Amino acid sequence: MEDQTRQRQASPEVQARIRASFERQGLMRHLGARIVHIASGCVRIVLPSRPEVTQQHGYIHAGATSAIADSAGGYAALTLSPENTSVLTVEYKINLLEPAVGDHIEAVGTVLKSGRTLSVCQLQVFGVQDGHRSLVATGQQTLMFVKERGEQPEIQR
Amino acid sequence: MEDQTRQRQASPEVQARIRASFERQGLMRHLGARIVHIASGCVRIVLPSRPEVTQQHGYIHAGATSAIADSAGGYAALTLSPENTSVLTVEYKINLLEPAVGDHIEAVGTVLKSGRTLSVCQLQVFGVQDGHRSLVATGQQTLMFVKERGEQPEIQR
Amino acid sequence: MEDQTRQRQASPEVQARIRASFERQGLMRHLGARIVHIASGCVRIVLPSRPEVTQQHGYIHAGATSAIADSAGGYAALTLSPENTSVLTVEYKINLLEPAVGDHIEAVGTVLKSGRTLSVCQLQVFGVQDGHRSLVATGQQTLMFVKERGEQPEIQR
Amino acid sequence: MEDQTRQRQASPEVQARIRASFERQGLMRHLGARIVHIASGCVRIVLPSRPEVTQQHGYIHAGATSAIADSAGGYAALTLSPENTSVLTVEYKINLLEPAVGDHIEAVGTVLKSGRTLSVCQLQVFGVQDGHRSLVATGQQTLMFVKERGEQPEIQR
Repeated sequence: MEDQTRQRQASPEVQARIRASFERQGLMRHLGARIVHIASGCVRIVLPSRPEVTQQHGYIHAGATSAIADSAGGYAALTLSPENTSVLTVEYKINLLEPAVGDHIEAVGTVLKSGRTLSVCQLQVFGVQDGHRSLVATGQQTLMFVKERGEQPEIQR
Repeated sequence: MEDQTRQRQASPEVQARIRASFERQGLMRHLGARIVHIASGCVRIVLPSRPEVTQQHGYIHAGATSAIADSAGGYAALTLSPENTSVLTVEYKINLLEPAVGDHIEAVGTVLKSGRTLSVCQLQVFGVQDGHRSLVATGQQTLMFVKERGEQPEIQR
Repeated sequence: MEDQTRQRQASPEVQARIRASFERQGLMRHLGARIVHIASGCVRIVLPSRPEVTQQHGYIHAGATSAIADSAGGYAALTLSPENTSVLTVEYKINLLEPAVGDHIEAVGTVLKSGRTLSVCQLQVFGVQDGHRSLVATGQQTLMFVKERGEQPEIQR
Repeated sequence: MEDQTRQRQASPEVQARIRASFERQGLMRHLGARIVHIASGCVRIVLPSRPEVTQQHGYIHAGATSAIADSAGGYAALTLSPENTSVLTVEYKINLLEPAVGDHIEAVGTVLKSGRTLSVCQLQVFGVQDGHRSLVATGQQTLMFVKERGEQPEIQR
């Protein structure tokens, strides 16, 4: 069911930091999404198919597809950021290539460029059915590093 | 709490068609989104703030913001489409301008161009707090009309 | 031939700064583009139709349309930036709505949000024929302010 | 100076068709761009550095970078289209990752998905200096196939 191209996992400290943040994302829990792999510069999030995430034809809603893609990219960028730094999505663009169907979908966020202030990620979402993977969406995302002040990011883009 | 720039509502037939489709979007119901205005070429969807739609800092998740923006644009395009036609999102791009906070957020999808095959919509999302509206996200979306065959769209982009 | 919705012009200092930068853009001169209006947060650039800017069907090439749209947005952002600051395009997205035809096309860049580090602009391009204006492209652009160091921006995104 | 990942060239018929169309793009000739490789689903276009394609700091203008990226993607899509079909750019989005510098830049357009009506391409632009290649821009593009009627495409999106 899994492809064999995964990178090695990030350090335990980075993984713990990412997972702690993911746990605080109420939307990911509400959708039923799980973070399944955390490598340096690459994060994977899985969303099982169920009626709560569909659009009007029964496919997974572009909004749910985008939500896990956005989170995967954001966490991929965060794996490469200094401590006490948060990551905010500046913008993203996503093409829906095929109806999102399958047992589950998997979003892969991969850092293309990590700068001092901005990161750019590639976003890919695959539909997975009985081990067969098919690209259902592809996108590109810009993110911004912001210093954390206490528990909140200092937001002044 | 509402701005005064709303267009006149679409015909009862068009409204019924849009609402019936919206009811079938499991994701919108699961998020708690409501469709609040349906005009020709312009649809508004509201999402109340609650922990189930947040990201790690407690703001509304970009994925939830995008989900209602995508649906608002899709239904705006559908108000101008022939009967027995479905609308699929080809792609969209969204800039997150401010943290999405407030009692609720409201997405406004507005058709910029409705062609024979494709539509292009403007997407805007406002945070609304105690009647004050602030633009939190802005985007642009491309959609495609597809003929319905029975209950399913004929998907061959 | 002109619409009547133009904002008041920016101060002479800002106008001089924008025009001096525009003069240094070899591409704008090579294409035959002219900057025709500079207001605070809104800049207009005109490109006359001629064979040197066409695509294979004789319409103005999307690349030429985008080039003046990108410059119009960049200069619109620059009108609101501190002195000794440059503006770099981080990314943009543009929809081509109609074939770009006419005596000339006019790009209008308008700042939607000007932050401490980033700006977001709306991009519109109109085809103008015998005084009739038609929207041929619409886009959205993200820009970054960078401090100038001597004559060069300090580029480390 | 060239990477070794090039695909095999397309058939002579397809190459002739692409080159004939490229010759008619006045903008490409005016910029000094050359089409250097035509494979099925992948086209490469090179633009030499010169003052006529610069922005205000002397780098290659984002508009020139985008113009050859847009053409590369458009011709990549055209290699996979039926005869008597034209390709129109519906929209694209591009991130400028680094200042575009070098002896020349090279745009690579690669088809990600070729449908019945729409194509989606990946756009990459590399700066090339003394044989060293560096990714300076990355984008994503949506295109539409339209039937040709005589010499003109039938444009009703």
